[in-house]
Amino acid sequence: MKRSLVRDIEKNEGEEVRLLGRALNIRKLGEINFIQLQDYTGTIQCVFEKGVEAKTGEAVEISGIVKKEERSKGGYEIQANKIEVISGNTEELPIDLSKPELKLQLDTLLNLRVLSLRHPKTQAIFKLYDILLESYEMVMRKVGFTETKTPKLLGAASEGGANFFKVDYFEKSAYLAQSPQFYKQIMVGVFERVFEIGTVFRAEPHFTTRHVNEYISLDAEMGFIENFQDVATTLNRVVGEMFAMIDEKGKKYLEELGVEMPDVPDNIPHIKLAEIKKIIKEKYNYEIPQGTDIDPEGERIACRWAKEEHGSDFVFLTHYPWSDRPFYTMRDEKNPQETCGFDLLFRGVEIATGGQRTHDYKTLVENMKDKGIKPNGMEAYLDTFKYAMPPHGGWGMGSERLIQLILGLKSVKEATLFPRDVKRLSP
Amino acid sequence: MKRSLVRDIEKNEGEEVRLLGRALNIRKLGEINFIQLQDYTGTIQCVFEKGVEAKTGEAVEISGIVKKEERSKGGYEIQANKIEVISGNTEELPIDLSKPELKLQLDTLLNLRVLSLRHPKTQAIFKLYDILLESYEMVMRKVGFTETKTPKLLGAASEGGANFFKVDYFEKSAYLAQSPQFYKQIMVGVFERVFEIGTVFRAEPHFTTRHVNEYISLDAEMGFIENFQDVATTLNRVVGEMFAMIDEKGKKYLEELGVEMPDVPDNIPHIKLAEIKKIIKEKYNYEIPQGTDIDPEGERIACRWAKEEHGSDFVFLTHYPWSDRPFYTMRDEKNPQETCGFDLLFRGVEIATGGQRTHDYKTLVENMKDKGIKPNGMEAYLDTFKYAMPPHGGWGMGSERLIQLILGLKSVKEATLFPRDVKRLSP
Repeated sequence: MKRSLVRDIEKNEGEEVRLLGRALNIRKLGEINFIQLQDYTGTIQCVFEKGVEAKTGEAVEISGIVKKEERSKGGYEIQANKIEVISGNTEELPIDLSKPELKLQLDTLLNLRVLSLRHPKTQAIFKLYDILLESYEMVMRKVGFTETKTPKLLGAASEGGANFFKVDYFEKSAYLAQSPQFYKQIMVGVFERVFEIGTVFRAEPHFTTRHVNEYISLDAEMGFIENFQDVATTLNRVVGEMFAMIDEKGKKYLEELGVEMPDVPDNIPHIKLAEIKKIIKEKYNYEIPQGTDIDPEGERIACRWAKEEHGSDFVFLTHYPWSDRPFYTMRDEKNPQETCGFDLLFRGVEIATGGQRTHDYKTLVENMKDKGIKPNGMEAYLDTFKYAMPPHGGWGMGSERLIQLILGLKSVKEATLFPRDVKRLSP
Repeated sequence: MKRSLVRDIEKNEGEEVRLLGRALNIRKLGEINFIQLQDYTGTIQCVFEKGVEAKTGEAVEISGIVKKEERSKGGYEIQANKIEVISGNTEELPIDLSKPELKLQLDTLLNLRVLSLRHPKTQAIFKLYDILLESYEMVMRKVGFTETKTPKLLGAASEGGANFFKVDYFEKSAYLAQSPQFYKQIMVGVFERVFEIGTVFRAEPHFTTRHVNEYISLDAEMGFIENFQDVATTLNRVVGEMFAMIDEKGKKYLEELGVEMPDVPDNIPHIKLAEIKKIIKEKYNYEIPQGTDIDPEGERIACRWAKEEHGSDFVFLTHYPWSDRPFYTMRDEKNPQETCGFDLLFRGVEIATGGQRTHDYKTLVENMKDKGIKPNGMEAYLDTFKYAMPPHGGWGMGSERLIQLILGLKSVKEATLFPRDVKRLSP
């Protein structure tokens, strides 16, 4: 008998079906056994009017009759008559996956990741992550961007050199890419608009709830812009369409997690960094520590301001100081100590960094000198600017952090399948 | 005046428009100048009845009137009256991008990659690559797979340990993932069907036209299969739908390159490796060297056989020997010296490797012992199999190699934006 899928079950009302999947949950009520069976298309309740020889979490085959059942989530259940264990547990599970909440310490949750991922609420996080990736792929194509895949092994530690992981590469050394920055700029010279979904590696010894050392960056770069506002406007639109798609396609997972998607304003408020710093000090009585452009507490207050003044969960902070931005950032014409660079904050945390880049060869070389950066290993990147690069800009957005903030998770590690940090390289 | 896009030009017939883009090509015919202008939506001819002060390859702004013109590719051209260079060449271009073919040695082509990518024929390769990625994303979702992103930094060099790049990771060593194999199997326990598009790293000192040391693998893994044929059948369908989509969406780029998409049979022929080896020897008089399952010449002949006997550009070779497959491969019940592993060949070259995996914990541990593999660093992976893993299998498919073979490119490096090999780490 052919396998039926949970998704198609309503087509088989009154008929015998054969289902394959995982017994997420087995409950006894006197003589009656209820099994929540999950396959890759959904979950359905199977009712046995007798004892069953299967344990929670096992891979099973269930046969039975499809019945309409109003009280059931999907409107149907299986009046089951046969169950067979296809693959059983050879050991007792160290955690109870049938509880409504796992309630584990982060470290335990991650140590037991191969199992804890199977909990319906954890599944929901990564189903939403899947939809987030899909939404970025779709929206970026819709607005004319070409998908590229650029190398993660670099011959030189560029962008100043700090915080790169070093790799033994045959007889030489290589470095893991911190971002696809140089390559996406080069590709603007080819396709004008490009995007990339790829792994980036950061050798920063962070111990925070917002950082991991390896993550998936949603990058974009676009040419023939008038100014950095063109980039911010495109990002605004992209995030808006992504959130709408997550809301639509992710409904059942958002419900599972009790989360509502926030509104993305058509015009996310913008404010200069220098201005918000003044407001943070004068209105919110918080002094941002010296030697930093803005600290996490400052970012939280900036978002509080955006919410109070503009009713927005998002805010663009613009014109970051030249001293704090990389050499390829375009300096502001009116004030060269400021840049055409911005951060997009969401619910108190930076989710994207972007801006306009320098496209003029001579200015680029001068800016590198100003930062004390040597051109070694960047020759091809620099050559690109001898050959008519249009004004351009783009962004990098942390995909896991976006899911973390949408869902209100305590740590970005809960939004990463198998997170990497200073102490964690497994599982 | 607002920017118009080439894509929308027919809506503005008879009207004045302002276009931004790259002057791909400037030709003079007496007093008349023809400029091929490219933006991210297409290319259009702009005709000036006077001299123009711009050079081939520059980023320009052109204003003029949209005219219907039957002889033009898109059916329209611009009767241009104004051109302004937005960003010029500060040096003479080292290659002539306006020639119909670049005709460069591979090494020169790659050294000058930041420019050579701008040639229309090279652009066409990577536009088709973009569509290939899109087709995989779409088709995999359609058949119920969830997209995952798994870590590229590993705590241990698993799968036997050879051919891994080593990374300095804070106070420890890490290794770059050769494939998402263990993680996608773990994820079968969560979502039953998963796919991943990600970078893989191979520290193999190859000097061939088919290998690079970093590439994008199209991976998949699926649960509750009956046998490895279920995996092969799904892969057959996926490749078929991908090729149909590339054919449809990539029409203009395929034409640019003078390529027709091959047919993907609904039922790609299957043959056991042992059988095809016999045929290769007896019918094609070629002896596969000792100590290898099949060599490149053998693969070419296997494809010749598939074409001659079945009219197919594709063939599945099945039942690879246990001695040549990784420990997680399922051994054939009838002959444990053979496996439920297969390769998919296309036009003489392997494009995908797949098969059924061992899902039984005890058998897996025995198979590891048989291969002399220590479990160190694989504890979490192994633990997964204590907890009811369904029968499962999957594949890994090389994305760049697929484009290489579709387009008949001499080297996979021509199908890789910025390829990495033993000697090349830049650009």
